[in-house]
Amino acid sequence: MHTLTGRGSVKLFAGNSHPSLASEIAEILDLPLAKREIVEFSNGNIFIKINETVRDHDVFVIQTANDPVNNNLMELLFMIDTLRYSSPARITAVMPYFPYVRSDKKDQPRTSIGARLVANLLETVGADRVITLNLHSWQIQGFFRIPVDHVLADSIIIDHLRTRDLSNTVAVAPDAGGAKRVEKYAHMLHLPFVIMDKRRAANDDKSHIQNIIGDARGKDAIIFDDEISTGGSVLGTARMLKAHGAEKISAAVVHGVLCGDAVTRINSCPDISEVVCTNSVATPDKASGKVKIHSCAGVLAKAIQHIHNGDALTPIYEEYYYHTT
Amino acid sequence: MHTLTGRGSVKLFAGNSHPSLASEIAEILDLPLAKREIVEFSNGNIFIKINETVRDHDVFVIQTANDPVNNNLMELLFMIDTLRYSSPARITAVMPYFPYVRSDKKDQPRTSIGARLVANLLETVGADRVITLNLHSWQIQGFFRIPVDHVLADSIIIDHLRTRDLSNTVAVAPDAGGAKRVEKYAHMLHLPFVIMDKRRAANDDKSHIQNIIGDARGKDAIIFDDEISTGGSVLGTARMLKAHGAEKISAAVVHGVLCGDAVTRINSCPDISEVVCTNSVATPDKASGKVKIHSCAGVLAKAIQHIHNGDALTPIYEEYYYHTT
Amino acid sequence: MHTLTGRGSVKLFAGNSHPSLASEIAEILDLPLAKREIVEFSNGNIFIKINETVRDHDVFVIQTANDPVNNNLMELLFMIDTLRYSSPARITAVMPYFPYVRSDKKDQPRTSIGARLVANLLETVGADRVITLNLHSWQIQGFFRIPVDHVLADSIIIDHLRTRDLSNTVAVAPDAGGAKRVEKYAHMLHLPFVIMDKRRAANDDKSHIQNIIGDARGKDAIIFDDEISTGGSVLGTARMLKAHGAEKISAAVVHGVLCGDAVTRINSCPDISEVVCTNSVATPDKASGKVKIHSCAGVLAKAIQHIHNGDALTPIYEEYYYHTT
Amino acid sequence: MHTLTGRGSVKLFAGNSHPSLASEIAEILDLPLAKREIVEFSNGNIFIKINETVRDHDVFVIQTANDPVNNNLMELLFMIDTLRYSSPARITAVMPYFPYVRSDKKDQPRTSIGARLVANLLETVGADRVITLNLHSWQIQGFFRIPVDHVLADSIIIDHLRTRDLSNTVAVAPDAGGAKRVEKYAHMLHLPFVIMDKRRAANDDKSHIQNIIGDARGKDAIIFDDEISTGGSVLGTARMLKAHGAEKISAAVVHGVLCGDAVTRINSCPDISEVVCTNSVATPDKASGKVKIHSCAGVLAKAIQHIHNGDALTPIYEEYYYHTT
Amino acid sequence: MHTLTGRGSVKLFAGNSHPSLASEIAEILDLPLAKREIVEFSNGNIFIKINETVRDHDVFVIQTANDPVNNNLMELLFMIDTLRYSSPARITAVMPYFPYVRSDKKDQPRTSIGARLVANLLETVGADRVITLNLHSWQIQGFFRIPVDHVLADSIIIDHLRTRDLSNTVAVAPDAGGAKRVEKYAHMLHLPFVIMDKRRAANDDKSHIQNIIGDARGKDAIIFDDEISTGGSVLGTARMLKAHGAEKISAAVVHGVLCGDAVTRINSCPDISEVVCTNSVATPDKASGKVKIHSCAGVLAKAIQHIHNGDALTPIYEEYYYHTT
Amino acid sequence: MHTLTGRGSVKLFAGNSHPSLASEIAEILDLPLAKREIVEFSNGNIFIKINETVRDHDVFVIQTANDPVNNNLMELLFMIDTLRYSSPARITAVMPYFPYVRSDKKDQPRTSIGARLVANLLETVGADRVITLNLHSWQIQGFFRIPVDHVLADSIIIDHLRTRDLSNTVAVAPDAGGAKRVEKYAHMLHLPFVIMDKRRAANDDKSHIQNIIGDARGKDAIIFDDEISTGGSVLGTARMLKAHGAEKISAAVVHGVLCGDAVTRINSCPDISEVVCTNSVATPDKASGKVKIHSCAGVLAKAIQHIHNGDALTPIYEEYYYHTT
Repeated sequence: MHTLTGRGSVKLFAGNSHPSLASEIAEILDLPLAKREIVEFSNGNIFIKINETVRDHDVFVIQTANDPVNNNLMELLFMIDTLRYSSPARITAVMPYFPYVRSDKKDQPRTSIGARLVANLLETVGADRVITLNLHSWQIQGFFRIPVDHVLADSIIIDHLRTRDLSNTVAVAPDAGGAKRVEKYAHMLHLPFVIMDKRRAANDDKSHIQNIIGDARGKDAIIFDDEISTGGSVLGTARMLKAHGAEKISAAVVHGVLCGDAVTRINSCPDISEVVCTNSVATPDKASGKVKIHSCAGVLAKAIQHIHNGDALTPIYEEYYYHTT
Repeated sequence: MHTLTGRGSVKLFAGNSHPSLASEIAEILDLPLAKREIVEFSNGNIFIKINETVRDHDVFVIQTANDPVNNNLMELLFMIDTLRYSSPARITAVMPYFPYVRSDKKDQPRTSIGARLVANLLETVGADRVITLNLHSWQIQGFFRIPVDHVLADSIIIDHLRTRDLSNTVAVAPDAGGAKRVEKYAHMLHLPFVIMDKRRAANDDKSHIQNIIGDARGKDAIIFDDEISTGGSVLGTARMLKAHGAEKISAAVVHGVLCGDAVTRINSCPDISEVVCTNSVATPDKASGKVKIHSCAGVLAKAIQHIHNGDALTPIYEEYYYHTT
Repeated sequence: MHTLTGRGSVKLFAGNSHPSLASEIAEILDLPLAKREIVEFSNGNIFIKINETVRDHDVFVIQTANDPVNNNLMELLFMIDTLRYSSPARITAVMPYFPYVRSDKKDQPRTSIGARLVANLLETVGADRVITLNLHSWQIQGFFRIPVDHVLADSIIIDHLRTRDLSNTVAVAPDAGGAKRVEKYAHMLHLPFVIMDKRRAANDDKSHIQNIIGDARGKDAIIFDDEISTGGSVLGTARMLKAHGAEKISAAVVHGVLCGDAVTRINSCPDISEVVCTNSVATPDKASGKVKIHSCAGVLAKAIQHIHNGDALTPIYEEYYYHTT
Repeated sequence: MHTLTGRGSVKLFAGNSHPSLASEIAEILDLPLAKREIVEFSNGNIFIKINETVRDHDVFVIQTANDPVNNNLMELLFMIDTLRYSSPARITAVMPYFPYVRSDKKDQPRTSIGARLVANLLETVGADRVITLNLHSWQIQGFFRIPVDHVLADSIIIDHLRTRDLSNTVAVAPDAGGAKRVEKYAHMLHLPFVIMDKRRAANDDKSHIQNIIGDARGKDAIIFDDEISTGGSVLGTARMLKAHGAEKISAAVVHGVLCGDAVTRINSCPDISEVVCTNSVATPDKASGKVKIHSCAGVLAKAIQHIHNGDALTPIYEEYYYHTT
Repeated sequence: MHTLTGRGSVKLFAGNSHPSLASEIAEILDLPLAKREIVEFSNGNIFIKINETVRDHDVFVIQTANDPVNNNLMELLFMIDTLRYSSPARITAVMPYFPYVRSDKKDQPRTSIGARLVANLLETVGADRVITLNLHSWQIQGFFRIPVDHVLADSIIIDHLRTRDLSNTVAVAPDAGGAKRVEKYAHMLHLPFVIMDKRRAANDDKSHIQNIIGDARGKDAIIFDDEISTGGSVLGTARMLKAHGAEKISAAVVHGVLCGDAVTRINSCPDISEVVCTNSVATPDKASGKVKIHSCAGVLAKAIQHIHNGDALTPIYEEYYYHTT
Repeated sequence: MHTLTGRGSVKLFAGNSHPSLASEIAEILDLPLAKREIVEFSNGNIFIKINETVRDHDVFVIQTANDPVNNNLMELLFMIDTLRYSSPARITAVMPYFPYVRSDKKDQPRTSIGARLVANLLETVGADRVITLNLHSWQIQGFFRIPVDHVLADSIIIDHLRTRDLSNTVAVAPDAGGAKRVEKYAHMLHLPFVIMDKRRAANDDKSHIQNIIGDARGKDAIIFDDEISTGGSVLGTARMLKAHGAEKISAAVVHGVLCGDAVTRINSCPDISEVVCTNSVATPDKASGKVKIHSCAGVLAKAIQHIHNGDALTPIYEEYYYHTT
């Protein structure tokens, strides 16, 4: 389907984090996954051997930020470091869910900015370029000194939602920080939107009053976020919406991290009827019951193809972008 | 008042952008502004001469991002570059309003991220550290590879507003991107908040419908933003609020850029009764009529003092921070 | 005329400093100027959007150091920085008149070396290579850690002068620092040369005696310099030469900066009959009366062509070099 | 006991890898462990908060390369990265057992050099200096561009062994790569030494003949190595020595990694009577039966003290070094 | 014989250290040595002029670490530095005998690690890649931040030795540090091996007892080392082997440094019958009597060919590697 | 005499290039030269051992660019590299005569800029600062990214010349490139000056006509230059001056390189009566006959003292500078 016509040969590598996504991308590109060994010794140390020549090749390495995040990240750093001394023409890290993507600012004294640290480490080991999907905040692009192709999987989500009757629906931001993101989705789907406002009731740390800014009474609601992790935030928002008179409630996110027993909790929660996400994170057996998972392999494969062929990525953005400004 | 007890001697320099703020800081620190010449030749070139020894000194250079921004930025880069080869112990750039602070992401293909560029240039010329006030987005800290002391002038604004009766008042975010910022102010002042939602009415680029998410009818309204530039956004929001039944409307921002005829427009606009800001940007004669300007020299002087003395900045944050999380 | 046969595609961009020179170069290379937007906001901030793909292209950016120098320099830095994250194969800055070219040494304590600063900034934003014309001192090449193609426009000047009868002519250096440069021109044109020696008459800062080392009496004189800025130095030298008995006096420089009312002063000065220069600096309407301007677009286009095609620049040098040692 | 008299204040931090060693060092230095939070979220991400000011302090961070190695390494990188932007005077990583210390060369095509990668990452996050114990090969010092204080724990091992009657004892290198190391211990203890030579019997990968170069018959034997990991190599060597007529066999290493069921295997193996090591790696409950563990906290505390006080480390080396060449 | 089919044109340069090896390589590659001038002025300064265009070429520079080592190294640094600003596509330093290869660790306080320093200097001047032969320790690869193609000349030595009857032969390591290296050769040639153990007899610095670990009595012996410099170590070992009853003794090394009167000493020493080495170091007239020198030009030419053509080097390793692990 | 009162302790090291100058400086500073070993092995390799602790010390390393230049330079690089990993507070290279100081521009295609290369190498090995005397061109300061203290030894020369009757004397520049330098000396001594103009008589490379620009007939002449190397240029100029009627001719330079038989040639040349220089270059036995050598140890010691004490160097410049602009 996709055609790789760029200069030199391509090699596609994958770490251990998400084999099915890597295979899907490889299949779309009609390219085998290149051979490598990733040995883990009994003392926890890993060892990488690249089993094919990459000399003068255009190399892509696919790895996402699954749990165990640190192990997957170190595996990626090891692979890139090993590749770099094996003389490729270029190394592109393909990172669908970026590690530490939510750790993007220092909002208390002496705290870590994890996403910057990861950006620094990638540059140190010799990544020439990064492809990633839907960053938590777009400013993270500025953490890099190498080009980042920030690809959007929004249309995957939007296409899924468009099949529904949205005439009596409101978009919901689970907190003020998500207002901008929800506004974008609301505009794409021609929906109004509301925002949850969580604040302390008193000097007591635990009791919170949660208000809804805007009106969701009698309406279906779609909660939009960039990721769903433990599900706590989405389920709490759904409960609140229900309490304020909303009808059918669903959630839509790009990154279905779904850690711990998130899927079970979603499936057993009466307040929510569906969660839709992509497979940017490895989710074996998680697409069950209310959880719908669509593949992002297509958009990633297309980005790889355009980058290798030296074609602009703009058509990809145009397809997935819609009317954002 | 403030006492400088840190190791070695301090030298305080200032560029040409904002002499009155520099003098105010110097006075608080009981320190003369160090002597330097900034010559501008007839061909537009500038030339810097540092007229005092800075060998082994702890040097601070004050420059803000007034119009002409590029000239003021180049002046700062020249000063730091010249100082660096003059063998100081450390150079701290004190930049109350950070240049290109709103250019913090690439949201269209092949566009500039100005704030990252400025961060890169500062590191290149040899700045060891930056002090700045209220960044447009906190993620900009991640653009740097040197420490940034991100000082907040919020309490200056808050203290001003607290003198009023706020019992029937609502906080307003002029767009969804500002929701998070307004939420913070609303929590500090125990106010509810609303958000403006601007969107196209049709496929026609020009006609917009602007809704208010949440309710402002019959209430006084304070529009919060990080800066007011031409005043267009604030005045448009005020007009809309009035149309939706709000009573007395004012605006509060940290950075009073107030370019062009912004002050005149504010003073002549019936929909707004007050704009409060700090002097982080040079605003000669701008504090007139409805425009109230409070000095940020105190918090900047305190930051310089703590940094020189090796004291934590946390007390400054605690004083100015209030209950943000 | 010129043929671009090198690997990959070329894109030629221009900043706002000198549109006519950029167009001339583009025409010679039979290449359109690539589309970009350079927006200047009301607060003085600029914003760049590259409107064509540059992925894997060989990119050249033309910008000269006109007044406002700092604005033009920042515009160039912004363009290169934006291009760099847009994934070109290579970025070459084409800078006919190099910014701060005369600020090349620290001859008083704690003064700026502007040309080094500019070299550092260019490297920081990601320029891979620089093309420039006639540097004030050749040592400036050593300020860079990237290759500099230092192209000479001397033959343009020399060819102009060769049309005259030079049998009774002397070359003139306006000061001792220019002796080496004038010696080169004198050798090319087989002329003798003299040097102006300016020194203080007494402990009084203002009164200077200016001597001529060598003899210009009864001869036509051509003052050679690298640039003419306000015209003060050239006109002062002409006056002195006249006073010492020289006949017809003209001046020849590569860079006709001609700032302020330089052209008017030249045209109204009885001591000088002609000033010849190139259009390395934008000089709208300046080629009038005694001021003759020749285009340097040809030599710049040739350099771009050779660099793109991977051909040596030596033939360009041989053509323009003559017998310099 | 130890006195910290150097300039400025010291802060001692520890990661989660080896709390007891950190406490021991802190106690010797009469210094509390500084407060920090290391949060691990449900998605595996970690978050660091430094709870004490480190501004202008001399900071030491203790972390060893226990399993899970990658997690402990990332924790260290996060801590240093967070500290660096918190403005300390200096950051020293105290890494008793260095991560990936045995991955020090590329002896097959396209394989990783883990120790270099770790060195690179440490420099990237801003470590100013590293203290480490007994590197697998001394050349690893050359992987760094920052100073490494390579401290030796040999005397701890030697002092333990000196309490025995060594008159009929031979030192043993488990392979040719360890000959140099064993020679050093043999010289210190005035012992002869032998080397195991393992090689393939045929083209069959599995069958090996293991010879002993030199004579161990009728002698007690001490196997020396830098670390004991699964115990496989040491136990195999012991079996071989027994088969060749050696008497009482013990092993001595600096780093008791002892992963998996190593301790059980040692305790149940009839061929070996004792394994002595230091606590450079966290070994909860591992010092049992035949496994003797001596603390290396003393030598690490001394190194920290000397570095902070600006004293030479040579006396430490002299004490621990003995007659190595 | 070899065919250069890679992208772009190749240029092969050589310094002054080893003209015959450079010519041999050039001949095998069917490529002329590119023209350059290396002038040495009367004040000892050198000056480089590259007399052919290298723009966009794939450039290789051959220089080995002959005495005068520092001069040859500086010549190489000058050549690469000059080439780099002449705009080649890539610069590979071909360094058969690496300068300061034995200075690879800091085993006393405050001593130099020469090989790291050289690696750093090569990267500074702009070498993109290094080809070298048989490093003293393989860890030196880790000193670089650029790819190193570590080519082995072992088969040259092995092929020479295989022509003999080795049935009664033992391999000899002249010290414990060489045990690993000798083990490799012993395995390749199916020989047993022994190790010399040198130690002090008493507290007297001068008197040493030298033992042989393992048995050489009545056997022919081949001493293996990476280099032979003054010959002192090899001849001392030979003497010792003789005293312990060995028969015919020879030595085999890759790098025949053979400085001073080494050749004379070898030829006149009754204890040794042959020394075999390669011409990785320039050895005019040294191949005489017992000293046999084989050319390493073939393997270097092959490495250059593979690198230029973008082919894996693994086949080279496989040919020369044999059964090392 | 000088007092070192700066923070921390100072250590003064010297390479092998110029022991007497180092001792003189040490004596003035009342400081012993710190102990170090510089071993040169029989294969030409050098090895450095620093025999005193430098931890947290302010270290100065004295080395000048004597022949053998490359050896002395490598020795300096080795010393600084070794010191850097020995944890000093700061390393200052004291380089009276800077290596490759005359190689400061690329005036033919593909030629080396030696002084930039040296600057790069110094930064790579970790020099924090450089002190040097009278650079050939002041632009060389711009080659560095670390501070350079460019100290002038001019007053040493000037003071020597002021003892003479200069009433009938002319200053002479041996070529146009030296005009600026001579102008400075001429102004200091209130002398007129003349310039030698050397050019080809025809298309024949060898025959040159040398003119004098300005008048030297009947006058004493002092030829000024930055260095005298083989003496060829100075003696040729003297001959020419004589031929044009000059009386007593002498020469004055800062750097008396005096390589080869320069001293003999000077002493036996009837056209010149005196050469005065400093001992910035080691000149054993060279101060004989007409060659007068004054020590520059005083100004170097003063620079070291001021730098260590954190005092401005301006007083040194004022003392030695006179009226240069």
